[in-house]
Amino acid sequence: MRTVFWLAASLCPVLLPACQPPGEPGAPAADVAAEAQAIRDVNAQWLAAVSARDAAATAAIYLPEGRLMPPNAVSALGSAAIAEFYRGIFELPNLSVSWTQDLVEVAESGTLAYDVGPYSLAYDGPSGRVEDRGKYLVVWKKVNGQWRVAAESFNSDLPLQ
Amino acid sequence: MRTVFWLAASLCPVLLPACQPPGEPGAPAADVAAEAQAIRDVNAQWLAAVSARDAAATAAIYLPEGRLMPPNAVSALGSAAIAEFYRGIFELPNLSVSWTQDLVEVAESGTLAYDVGPYSLAYDGPSGRVEDRGKYLVVWKKVNGQWRVAAESFNSDLPLQ
Repeated sequence: MRTVFWLAASLCPVLLPACQPPGEPGAPAADVAAEAQAIRDVNAQWLAAVSARDAAATAAIYLPEGRLMPPNAVSALGSAAIAEFYRGIFELPNLSVSWTQDLVEVAESGTLAYDVGPYSLAYDGPSGRVEDRGKYLVVWKKVNGQWRVAAESFNSDLPLQ
Repeated sequence: MRTVFWLAASLCPVLLPACQPPGEPGAPAADVAAEAQAIRDVNAQWLAAVSARDAAATAAIYLPEGRLMPPNAVSALGSAAIAEFYRGIFELPNLSVSWTQDLVEVAESGTLAYDVGPYSLAYDGPSGRVEDRGKYLVVWKKVNGQWRVAAESFNSDLPLQ
């Protein structure tokens, strides 16, 4: 029996690329650290697209069926609605918007992830500078080898005036 | 070579429970439909705990290190802060709160998931009934065989007054 086991185990890497050792159920774990870095890289593209006021490039960070769930407005569903949302944001005078990723957590399968962190947003309003800060939650999905935003929610830390 | 392949393939189910057929990289997929149903079941417990105004039972739906990210307040981090948040909510007179799960999506590994849907919230305020509606995004994580909330964000659909 031991011989049979060793035979199967030694053939496994050659013939069955996804074989797991016995007693280790589940996925050949994705390299979650590498996947988290890939998400950080896409996040950097996202920040760059926002900085460039490029609504189409910003919307392209989301899945075609992505959900942007902003406060005090209904969700923007899909690329066209998301680009439209960003066009509105980009019209705000002297807009400054930024966020940082406090935590990026990737599922063992390397297909789903989320991140959270603080954001800051400021622009010139009718009666002076408006300054907001809060936190976001983003769900990422890997589709065709690319991490894209499946859903995003955010809200202010500041009390209602 | 064909014989060797069949030998390895036929041994595989006996000796290597997690073997995958060649050419199918990745996890022996979790039963994502069953996992989604498990999340719906925990969500029903969550609604019941809220309905019973039980802050401890409600907080227990979250991971011990869970994040509750409410609008117009800083995040509640961890069980104690989350229970405290719910105690405040449960003091609202004639509170009515509910939500429905529009979408539950589970990672192939069966360890991470998210759901989204609409919520409604109403209570008697100082100057009459306050009625809010909006949407939520919840990230779920399976730990020790139990689905728990890792992070939750929500916000109103209604324009600022």
